[in-house]
Amino acid sequence: MTSIGSAFDESCLFCRIVAGQIPATVVRDSEEFLTFRDINPQAPTHVLVIPKAHGYRDVGELAAKNPELAGRLLAEAAEVARDEGLTDHADISGYRLVFNTDDAAGQTVYHVHLHVLGGDALGHFGSAEH
Amino acid sequence: MTSIGSAFDESCLFCRIVAGQIPATVVRDSEEFLTFRDINPQAPTHVLVIPKAHGYRDVGELAAKNPELAGRLLAEAAEVARDEGLTDHADISGYRLVFNTDDAAGQTVYHVHLHVLGGDALGHFGSAEH
Repeated sequence: MTSIGSAFDESCLFCRIVAGQIPATVVRDSEEFLTFRDINPQAPTHVLVIPKAHGYRDVGELAAKNPELAGRLLAEAAEVARDEGLTDHADISGYRLVFNTDDAAGQTVYHVHLHVLGGDALGHFGSAEH
Repeated sequence: MTSIGSAFDESCLFCRIVAGQIPATVVRDSEEFLTFRDINPQAPTHVLVIPKAHGYRDVGELAAKNPELAGRLLAEAAEVARDEGLTDHADISGYRLVFNTDDAAGQTVYHVHLHVLGGDALGHFGSAEH
């Protein structure tokens, strides 16, 4: 496995979820990644996939420093989408992957995370007036 | 460079943009990727980053078959966001990266593409009722 460090940040919500200090509904737990349900879902299925290590504040930093890990994060998310039934959904199949970076996009936790959404026809994904 | 094939699909809109057969407003042209403005923008800045080769219909296929290329695609998108001024925007900084896969997410072109959005406070990114 590529070394990704094993930093733990006591002040980071997602590090504390990884450490089991804060509860979350975990749906997948692999060596490198943890997947759990978003507590404020924007679709019938809405989970977050994170690298367990606290090495990267956002997708830009992750992709610049460790593109292989970034690619594996995407592969993990696609497997999660399949396992959640989003790729063969009874009503409408498909899923959306979203990285939000900084204020404009509403990033609130600076431990890189990938949103996986589906289970319904998803709407717009930009600003309201466009 | 990792071999990514060089398939060209005459019926693919994005392949034809890469080949110069259909016009687009290109903002970045690298060895592996092409970036151009979305013709139906959902934010003040809205560009698409694509691998030039027509090897992958969606992010799931890309990440499973070639995670290294998927990671480099994310890195390219983050550089585009910086070059477009989204990371030091005068009003509100940040950007959103989105992969839409299949009907539920509104994918219309089956040549994998990554949306980069910013230049405004971005809204919700799931289904309307959530």
